[in-house]
Amino acid sequence: MPLGVSETAFIDPQGGNRGAIAALLQDALHLLLDHSTQAAQGSPLPPLQPWQLPTAIPQQGQDPALLFHHLQSLMAQSMNPAHPGYLGHMDPPATTLSLVGDLLAAVLNNNMLAVEMSPVFSRLEPLVLQELAQGFGFGAGSGGLLLSGGTLANLQALTVARNVQLPPVRTQGLGAAGRPVVLASAVAHTSWRKATMVLGLGSEALIPVATNDESQMDLGDLERQYQGAIAAGQRPFALVATAGTTVTGNIDPLPALAAFAQAQGLWFHVDAAYGGALIFSPEQRHRLQGIDQADSITFNPQKWLYVTKTCAMVLFRQMDRLQEAFHIAAPYMGRDGDWRNLGEVSVQGTRHVDILKLWLSLQHLGHQGYGALIAASYDLTDYLRRGLEQRSFLHLASGPELNILCFRGQPQGLDPAVWDDWNRNLQQFLLKEADCFLSLPLYRGSLWLKVVLLNPHCDRAILDRLLAGIDRYAALTLPS
Amino acid sequence: MPLGVSETAFIDPQGGNRGAIAALLQDALHLLLDHSTQAAQGSPLPPLQPWQLPTAIPQQGQDPALLFHHLQSLMAQSMNPAHPGYLGHMDPPATTLSLVGDLLAAVLNNNMLAVEMSPVFSRLEPLVLQELAQGFGFGAGSGGLLLSGGTLANLQALTVARNVQLPPVRTQGLGAAGRPVVLASAVAHTSWRKATMVLGLGSEALIPVATNDESQMDLGDLERQYQGAIAAGQRPFALVATAGTTVTGNIDPLPALAAFAQAQGLWFHVDAAYGGALIFSPEQRHRLQGIDQADSITFNPQKWLYVTKTCAMVLFRQMDRLQEAFHIAAPYMGRDGDWRNLGEVSVQGTRHVDILKLWLSLQHLGHQGYGALIAASYDLTDYLRRGLEQRSFLHLASGPELNILCFRGQPQGLDPAVWDDWNRNLQQFLLKEADCFLSLPLYRGSLWLKVVLLNPHCDRAILDRLLAGIDRYAALTLPS
Repeated sequence: MPLGVSETAFIDPQGGNRGAIAALLQDALHLLLDHSTQAAQGSPLPPLQPWQLPTAIPQQGQDPALLFHHLQSLMAQSMNPAHPGYLGHMDPPATTLSLVGDLLAAVLNNNMLAVEMSPVFSRLEPLVLQELAQGFGFGAGSGGLLLSGGTLANLQALTVARNVQLPPVRTQGLGAAGRPVVLASAVAHTSWRKATMVLGLGSEALIPVATNDESQMDLGDLERQYQGAIAAGQRPFALVATAGTTVTGNIDPLPALAAFAQAQGLWFHVDAAYGGALIFSPEQRHRLQGIDQADSITFNPQKWLYVTKTCAMVLFRQMDRLQEAFHIAAPYMGRDGDWRNLGEVSVQGTRHVDILKLWLSLQHLGHQGYGALIAASYDLTDYLRRGLEQRSFLHLASGPELNILCFRGQPQGLDPAVWDDWNRNLQQFLLKEADCFLSLPLYRGSLWLKVVLLNPHCDRAILDRLLAGIDRYAALTLPS
Repeated sequence: MPLGVSETAFIDPQGGNRGAIAALLQDALHLLLDHSTQAAQGSPLPPLQPWQLPTAIPQQGQDPALLFHHLQSLMAQSMNPAHPGYLGHMDPPATTLSLVGDLLAAVLNNNMLAVEMSPVFSRLEPLVLQELAQGFGFGAGSGGLLLSGGTLANLQALTVARNVQLPPVRTQGLGAAGRPVVLASAVAHTSWRKATMVLGLGSEALIPVATNDESQMDLGDLERQYQGAIAAGQRPFALVATAGTTVTGNIDPLPALAAFAQAQGLWFHVDAAYGGALIFSPEQRHRLQGIDQADSITFNPQKWLYVTKTCAMVLFRQMDRLQEAFHIAAPYMGRDGDWRNLGEVSVQGTRHVDILKLWLSLQHLGHQGYGALIAASYDLTDYLRRGLEQRSFLHLASGPELNILCFRGQPQGLDPAVWDDWNRNLQQFLLKEADCFLSLPLYRGSLWLKVVLLNPHCDRAILDRLLAGIDRYAALTLPS
């Protein structure tokens, strides 16, 4: 190493500093174990502390011991999704094999841009994703691509949909394409509006379709919105269904939407970022009926498969369309006859090796393991639902279809004008007094409490604590 | 855990399975150490083996011991950037603290989507990036955003540029915007063409400006291309300069391009994905003169700062423009008065915590460490350049400005029609007979050999081996 570079800055590929590196990584492992085996003792979402980390880049490198000292306090202040009371978002604790996968991916530092830069992983990813595509009922010729997060998976899908449906746009742009629009449920994820904005369609090109009481797309309104767009001179080219809405976890009527899309010649996408995990549940997978009619599907193992972030994918019924509608060559890369340079068909170029942790987690848990986790999660959902329904001052946003419950207090003894405040304070009370973190989404113009029963360490005792916390708060705040 | 889920699938937050988890992670650590401390013994780019990994998802979960057995062979077949003879791409071995950062990011599994999901990291990222922005000469009000790879950083920059320059596009789309176009060097990275395609401008909206013999943008041709676009009814709105071209590592004339962009009212972006590291070199940073005039800059620590993939950023001279021109709300997220939900201003939503490994690496190496690595890298570049110039059958593509040398054999004794084959075979010879991996880009219509002297384990002895390999190949293939 040149003078001024720490002896442990890199691992010597000749083994010269193995002892020092091993000691440093052991320290990291101890930090990891001490933190994660005591995660239940802290708060699911610790309060923000005054800022103490040094952010200035020092002239001389710092001793790792000092950095590890900072790391300890930084970890203690982080979101703590392994806490059994962390129930607020679709953000789970990690599978153990995800940690192994991320650690080994880091030391290998391969690049999903091209086969030459990831000879094993550029083959592993298409093979695993083809199997998952078939798990959704897609046939031969299907396949997929991992992307760094669900927003990018949706962006990738809509780019391909636009280029397939409006052929000159890929090379000549949207100038001559009229006013293309996309239809999606009013409660579809915010990334769809972002995608229409990024793609040059404009954020107003996402036409929201009204939902019924169960947060599912209303077919009558779909027909009205579609005809209205045509009448206004717009050009609908894609229909986005959701299998697992962000706030309430509901599923759009997939078979009817598939039929509508086919009749009107629309690209049919199913955003199953969350609900896609049901393919691992023999008891629940019927809820995804019709998804095999999609042209493309988003599915995020970073959610209900507990793989570390990021791990998200887009699957295509006809994988060839991706190549035809997207390919941008990278002439500085070598090529291999049989395998694709994935960076040439992706909105990303250089990309992290997310397939390693996904493959390891699927192998370690198997169909049976994931199926059992999903079943347990449905049991807890039923249990908590009954508890919530027993409390007359609470109101459920919709009938749960997955493992998500969304509710709010609408206590008759209080002025409806203060209900939002009452719920906001309830969320804080539950976090501080019951060690349970629920999120507080804005939904249908009001504040709600959202519970995601994803955490494998959650059990009925935690839910009893949550319900008792609600009762204590109600006793303190409601007229008796 | 439910029946059927492995006891080590997750870390018990109560510590119940600490022993088993510790043993499993120790096994992973041994794999890591055995691989990385012997990385110099293998090949820098091992040949592809017949496929042996199981990709089918098993019914019952597999024993980690079996998976670790597969991992060993999988690692042995991966791209090996830690090998001292890996010189082919801008893909380095990882800093040790990157490994620590990626491991701890995995166990925390926080999410850069929102402050609520990453309370510490959503504060750390803007602070560190603001300091880096100022390192490029930007003033108060500057800042930046990490993205999962340089292609996304470029996409983010061009989305903001488009929305700022063509105000109705953000909400109403490109329909009424005429034919917007972007000017960039003919050798700008392929991600710029991808960005114009994704953004709905069309892949033909990237207007290539010719380069001089040193692969730098030609100012006369820039003026011609700009006037030609105007005459054709197109609407140039951005100019992209490159500081470190992909194949030859050259730098466009930044001060002149900044002046041109300002005179014509164009957004000025500098793609310093590679060359941006020069801000850490007191001797070399003068090469970036003029970069402080940019509206936005791409800079990828995943390259010359040796941070694991992915770690890339876009920096804005006026950070407020990002909020104004991009913001898409996520109403299901909590908010904190002082800190931004980064997912609302990014083409990504859920995002990996890349700031942890970047912060740790910057703290561990410091200005001095990175400066010393860059200086050593320039020394090796000079050394190899002299060696290549001594061989009359070799021809350099351009005068090197960074640590990249691009050359090809044009032996006078051979028909020029076979030169491409001769160079292709030379690349394979060097890989097999000299354990040196050089890449083989297509550039100016011919095949070249590219050497990136980024590897901190490379030294003059390796370069002597490379030159000796070239001589042996020449002796075997050239008429004496």
